[in-house]
Amino acid sequence: MTITDPPPAPAWRHLLAEFLGTALLVAIVVGSGVMASRLSPDDVGVQLLENSIATALGLAVLILLFAPLTGAHFNPVVSLAESLTTRGAGRALALGYIPAQVLGAIGGALLANAMFGIAPAIATTERVTAGTLLGEVVATAGLLLLILGLSRAGRPSAIIAPAVGAYIGAAYWFTSSTSFANPAVTIGRVFSDTFAGISPLSALAFVAAQLVGAAVGFAVATLLFPRPTIAR
Amino acid sequence: MTITDPPPAPAWRHLLAEFLGTALLVAIVVGSGVMASRLSPDDVGVQLLENSIATALGLAVLILLFAPLTGAHFNPVVSLAESLTTRGAGRALALGYIPAQVLGAIGGALLANAMFGIAPAIATTERVTAGTLLGEVVATAGLLLLILGLSRAGRPSAIIAPAVGAYIGAAYWFTSSTSFANPAVTIGRVFSDTFAGISPLSALAFVAAQLVGAAVGFAVATLLFPRPTIAR
Amino acid sequence: MTITDPPPAPAWRHLLAEFLGTALLVAIVVGSGVMASRLSPDDVGVQLLENSIATALGLAVLILLFAPLTGAHFNPVVSLAESLTTRGAGRALALGYIPAQVLGAIGGALLANAMFGIAPAIATTERVTAGTLLGEVVATAGLLLLILGLSRAGRPSAIIAPAVGAYIGAAYWFTSSTSFANPAVTIGRVFSDTFAGISPLSALAFVAAQLVGAAVGFAVATLLFPRPTIAR
Amino acid sequence: MTITDPPPAPAWRHLLAEFLGTALLVAIVVGSGVMASRLSPDDVGVQLLENSIATALGLAVLILLFAPLTGAHFNPVVSLAESLTTRGAGRALALGYIPAQVLGAIGGALLANAMFGIAPAIATTERVTAGTLLGEVVATAGLLLLILGLSRAGRPSAIIAPAVGAYIGAAYWFTSSTSFANPAVTIGRVFSDTFAGISPLSALAFVAAQLVGAAVGFAVATLLFPRPTIAR
Repeated sequence: MTITDPPPAPAWRHLLAEFLGTALLVAIVVGSGVMASRLSPDDVGVQLLENSIATALGLAVLILLFAPLTGAHFNPVVSLAESLTTRGAGRALALGYIPAQVLGAIGGALLANAMFGIAPAIATTERVTAGTLLGEVVATAGLLLLILGLSRAGRPSAIIAPAVGAYIGAAYWFTSSTSFANPAVTIGRVFSDTFAGISPLSALAFVAAQLVGAAVGFAVATLLFPRPTIAR
Repeated sequence: MTITDPPPAPAWRHLLAEFLGTALLVAIVVGSGVMASRLSPDDVGVQLLENSIATALGLAVLILLFAPLTGAHFNPVVSLAESLTTRGAGRALALGYIPAQVLGAIGGALLANAMFGIAPAIATTERVTAGTLLGEVVATAGLLLLILGLSRAGRPSAIIAPAVGAYIGAAYWFTSSTSFANPAVTIGRVFSDTFAGISPLSALAFVAAQLVGAAVGFAVATLLFPRPTIAR
Repeated sequence: MTITDPPPAPAWRHLLAEFLGTALLVAIVVGSGVMASRLSPDDVGVQLLENSIATALGLAVLILLFAPLTGAHFNPVVSLAESLTTRGAGRALALGYIPAQVLGAIGGALLANAMFGIAPAIATTERVTAGTLLGEVVATAGLLLLILGLSRAGRPSAIIAPAVGAYIGAAYWFTSSTSFANPAVTIGRVFSDTFAGISPLSALAFVAAQLVGAAVGFAVATLLFPRPTIAR
Repeated sequence: MTITDPPPAPAWRHLLAEFLGTALLVAIVVGSGVMASRLSPDDVGVQLLENSIATALGLAVLILLFAPLTGAHFNPVVSLAESLTTRGAGRALALGYIPAQVLGAIGGALLANAMFGIAPAIATTERVTAGTLLGEVVATAGLLLLILGLSRAGRPSAIIAPAVGAYIGAAYWFTSSTSFANPAVTIGRVFSDTFAGISPLSALAFVAAQLVGAAVGFAVATLLFPRPTIAR
């Protein structure tokens, strides 16, 4: 998130932060999904409730922790949006986050697998329908609009962090796709054939829908929040 | 909510914000209701728990995002109350929000239908009893008292947003009507024959009860908070 | 709560605020209990989960709203503690809150009954065991320690409100009595023979245990927080 | 947590605060576990949901309350980390917290037993697998990284408290061990043969894994947050 000017720090620290933050995010999503499906085998809704609450809380905490280092993107569409509004070294750095996020996401899925004693395997869950692709467009547009709008209004990271967590917690439920809304996380979830997994082909389609959603969200944010203000 | 003086902005931006915010609110209410009833078919209580948590989180986020633009009314009774305490162009603008809210609410219901692959249909769920109408009076009175009281005490939007989300999350449970408390959202929910739907006749009665509740809430707020103060 | 010096206001406004706040609190406790037991009849744990989440959210909101008027006591043991640390007119006012709280609590139970179409009846649920009485001592001691400690540390009402809500949300679960912790609310819950009800005899014993707990909490708070400080 | 310089206070008050805070933490963990397993006997997932929500809320409240006194460690690995970055009397005091925490944790388990009418007994639940030990390493590393990172960024205790509660709420789900992450709490949970119990042998292994995790967390925190900053 473009919350604040990051303090001067060597680029390796930025990259490590984005790697680690995205890894922990995927470990939370995948790990809580495994725990939920094991403990509540008879009610898929309760599984999603458990998974969504853990994700909302964990994501809020991760953003709060890493915001002072990199802005806590953890998401290629956020880094892309950041690179469009920054120049020079900042732009190159934001784009450099993307491979760190993808590697982190894969690492996080493998870590979750290891904690739960699950052999690594490519996920087989097909998730593509017309409805879920529209869901990903809506989920990603909403996420980017939220992040850009709150940043434009000068909200501090202590507000943005729980807000983004709460948004994802809600979007697990109101979008038909359970809101992946993040290309790096989507790729990471290919590497765990569990509750939170997604097949490679579905992942490809989801990422495409996310890019469309990101463009929509960026456009709406530009329209609604044309210049920085100070919210009360 | 009458949180703050909105920054200078053309009226179309205000109207777009109220349209979009109300649309997303209804998409959250209806979409999470569909997801909950599909995934937890055997326990209506768990369905309402899932629906209420998603709504509380999503509503808080939407208010936080749109408060700097319009005060984030999303609700005709809030705009009406605002128009009673404002003069001139501000009053006209507040009243102008109402059609934008109603159109947004309908659009949000249709968007939720589309995400979940549901054909548009007028809802058939009858919800009127003496108890539920009293529930709507209480729910709307409480909502308006909350918004006006917090505004009068000078609370910033970063406090009002989660407070209103939390109120609605509680009111889903403690009012017998599951707290519609919003004429625009009530009309929008006519357009989805799903968990969150409401028949046109019930909607009419609910809106009437909401107007009564709004009058009660406005009167109590005027009695208890006669002048602006600064809360600690 | 002794959050702040209330702004100058006539006493009737204070009394109305305590009456209304306590009434809404009991309406939330009783109403969400009825809704939960109707919608989730097969799992008492899920009922308590629904009831506790609604109460935690609703209580936080009520404290936030009424704190600028009276400090949002809603609880005779809080008013008693306040009267012990105040002199003159403030002491008399704090003690005067108690009848307003008791009447409000009864009114709130009747309101919840009316919303759910339940005829008023004295509750028949016996709740007294050695364990539940100890539970009430612990719950009330913890509540008073929390309120006094946060006040002593200069926490603003925007922090105290969600903290007290969160405490009660946890105490529904970790105390064996589901944490009544409030003599006025206990009396109010006698007037609804539903999920949240309590028989008159049990209520009497619970109130006695709450007074013991309040004394313990007051003593520990005095020991740990001997003088006001400013927390970061 | 190294949130702030504690105000001048005699050491007995610090020790009492760490004793009481850890006791209440374990009473919350154990008590809510008993309540959950009694009320929701048919769904272990719902039990953990109830247990984790109560713990997240209660822990946040305890940290908020005790932070001005001692920094609200409640955890030997936090006190150890604090002692590594402090000199003189502060170091001795931080190390002195550890026995108070262990005694408090045992007392809290016994208090929960008493509230629920359970005879004290050593727990028999074996919890050690390769996966759960890795889970404890991850859970403790994450907890220490969070606390040190937020402190280094100058976050106030009003932010750290809910963040740590939220982290533990998520870690109940995403780590395979349900995140004990605290040697004192682990020892305390040996003294209740209930939902939250752990056998002495498993406790020993968990504590070892927690120490490894603490070292990892300390190292990563030192790498990522080499000097204090002010987060926005």
